[in-house]
Amino acid sequence: MAKQQICILGSTGSIGRQALDVISQHPDLYEAYCLTANSSVDLLAEQARQFRPACVVIANEQYYHDLKDKLSDCPEIKVYAGKEALCQVVESDPINVVLASMVGFAGLVPTIHAIKAGKKIALANKETLVVAGELMLRLVQQYHVDLLPVDSEHSAIFQSLVGEDMNEVDKILLTCSGGPFRLFDRDRLATVTAADALKHPTWDMGAKITIDSASLMNKGFEVMEARWLFGVPADHIQVLIHPQSIVHSGVQFKDGAVKAQLGVPDMRLPIQYAFSYPRRLTLQGDRLDLFKAQRLEFFEPDVEKFPCLRLAYEAIAKGGNMPCILNAANEVANAAFRRGECSFLGMADIIEKTMQQVAFDSKVDLDLYLDTDREAREVATRVLRAQ
Amino acid sequence: MAKQQICILGSTGSIGRQALDVISQHPDLYEAYCLTANSSVDLLAEQARQFRPACVVIANEQYYHDLKDKLSDCPEIKVYAGKEALCQVVESDPINVVLASMVGFAGLVPTIHAIKAGKKIALANKETLVVAGELMLRLVQQYHVDLLPVDSEHSAIFQSLVGEDMNEVDKILLTCSGGPFRLFDRDRLATVTAADALKHPTWDMGAKITIDSASLMNKGFEVMEARWLFGVPADHIQVLIHPQSIVHSGVQFKDGAVKAQLGVPDMRLPIQYAFSYPRRLTLQGDRLDLFKAQRLEFFEPDVEKFPCLRLAYEAIAKGGNMPCILNAANEVANAAFRRGECSFLGMADIIEKTMQQVAFDSKVDLDLYLDTDREAREVATRVLRAQ
Repeated sequence: MAKQQICILGSTGSIGRQALDVISQHPDLYEAYCLTANSSVDLLAEQARQFRPACVVIANEQYYHDLKDKLSDCPEIKVYAGKEALCQVVESDPINVVLASMVGFAGLVPTIHAIKAGKKIALANKETLVVAGELMLRLVQQYHVDLLPVDSEHSAIFQSLVGEDMNEVDKILLTCSGGPFRLFDRDRLATVTAADALKHPTWDMGAKITIDSASLMNKGFEVMEARWLFGVPADHIQVLIHPQSIVHSGVQFKDGAVKAQLGVPDMRLPIQYAFSYPRRLTLQGDRLDLFKAQRLEFFEPDVEKFPCLRLAYEAIAKGGNMPCILNAANEVANAAFRRGECSFLGMADIIEKTMQQVAFDSKVDLDLYLDTDREAREVATRVLRAQ
Repeated sequence: MAKQQICILGSTGSIGRQALDVISQHPDLYEAYCLTANSSVDLLAEQARQFRPACVVIANEQYYHDLKDKLSDCPEIKVYAGKEALCQVVESDPINVVLASMVGFAGLVPTIHAIKAGKKIALANKETLVVAGELMLRLVQQYHVDLLPVDSEHSAIFQSLVGEDMNEVDKILLTCSGGPFRLFDRDRLATVTAADALKHPTWDMGAKITIDSASLMNKGFEVMEARWLFGVPADHIQVLIHPQSIVHSGVQFKDGAVKAQLGVPDMRLPIQYAFSYPRRLTLQGDRLDLFKAQRLEFFEPDVEKFPCLRLAYEAIAKGGNMPCILNAANEVANAAFRRGECSFLGMADIIEKTMQQVAFDSKVDLDLYLDTDREAREVATRVLRAQ
């Protein structure tokens, strides 16, 4: 069988780097065809030297010459720059799989191009479904492409559903570590900093997602993702705080059976599974030892302390462009928190006010998403400055 | 679709009664065609009145006239008696599914008849696979019948394997409540009685199986069952003591993913799933609440305190008629313990000595099983009397 040619959108991020590890474990099956980054030019060049893709793209054009210089002795690797180039390379004929692992809303447009080009999508960029789930799913159906989830929870749900009938699903059980501030009271939450959140121990993630995990906004996003990936309404998606992060998520069926996928925290598993599905390949790495784990616990989430989760449920219930508003406001609030410009609890305030102020529209298309995203960022920035 | 006609071998036992509850929840899908019991004539007659099967069989012939009298006002229900009749009725044309839920070795021959008649087998009688797994699997393949496990652990494994490839299985994780004596030391184990064991809180089971659960022999049997049902060697089947009995068992794949089925302890789920597979039907009953469960724990089994588990692993490693010897000796020892004629730890001694004294034979067929079973019971009885 010919090797699967893989395009990694965001190869220098946490998911991208682990995807390259998966590829290096199976050189007979997978090949990196295209690697892309936003601005991490040094690492992108280093990855290109090691994996010898057909092309690399740096989204931020100002790094083009730097990247070109760094790869001047590898003339067989084509070097491109800019967002337009991203959208073009994902359509390249030889590509079989596009791993969408860019951070934030920027992943949407290239992913749409990949779907329209009929590529299998391994989706790690959750904002894509959060913002534009309705549109995305319409395109996935229209272009008959496979859409495979790459975060650990949705991969666990997907794995629990293999061979099962969606009509027999009663609810989805979405687990959540609870984040580093799970046991803090509201007073203490008011004073936490981004540095505190970035000590999050369980998963190796980027800074933006780590903050979203601490606020439980990330879990809210995942409720939205699950809603679109699995066609299950949000009130049939239950969040369970599970501090041990061993049960990666599961499904309850209408006969009462619960199926779940468990494992060590290792993002390479869902990445590899998205590549290999419906097969499973050997993956070098730690194995779950339930004797060491010993105790698995489950608690209800506290939406008083973590209002972002409540806002996410509200946004998906509202539908239309509201999840897009939520996401844009969150990107502004998250970045402000990381710069020390707003408090931890202030993030939810910014998001809630932005949701109240941006015009709601129930009929979604790409232009609406782009307009909404821009407007919501402006509104959120004003709300932030007024705080 | 025509209703599935179900034959319940052992309808008055715990599994049989719960199977009738499943049938009564889906009168549009399932019908009891034949009910059988060993000697519980009152309950069998009562069940016959309620479910109106085409026929009933009482295995112990001395109860034939009693049963016939009790059903004299239901002339449309045919009444049979004797072991030969059991073997004949399972072959009846209208029967689609035979639920083999008789206790002990007696379930083997009727089950073989059902396989040869091409019936789908829902297998709750674990001794059938323990004693004659090799022969049974050969017949299942030869007659192309579906063999669906009915105990909670193997159903959980089976459910975890739906849509998966057996070649990608790394190991089976077989959970075990640990029984009522899990935390006892050997001194205390020496003095426990059958009455102590029968307080076992988690599952509603018959007396024989409850004792087997307390000694972990039941788990040893389940290792053997799993070995035959799933074709996984015993050294890839790991027993995990899990006192909460919520994770009903699972599978680890070669990519490190573990899939498991969880639920409340309710035998109706595996019974119904065996009937409905590959579909799932609504089942009225309690649902798993992981917030109430809160804590799931896993411990290694202690084979010093529970040598029956070690003996079972030894028997399956040896193969041939050794599991048959183990099973026959266990039936003698278990019954003796229930009568107060041997101690809890004495059961393992009887079994181990019987395994040493009965002639080993690696080439198995039904006659060998029957001969071995008889000889092993004689030897075990002698060992018991010499204690």
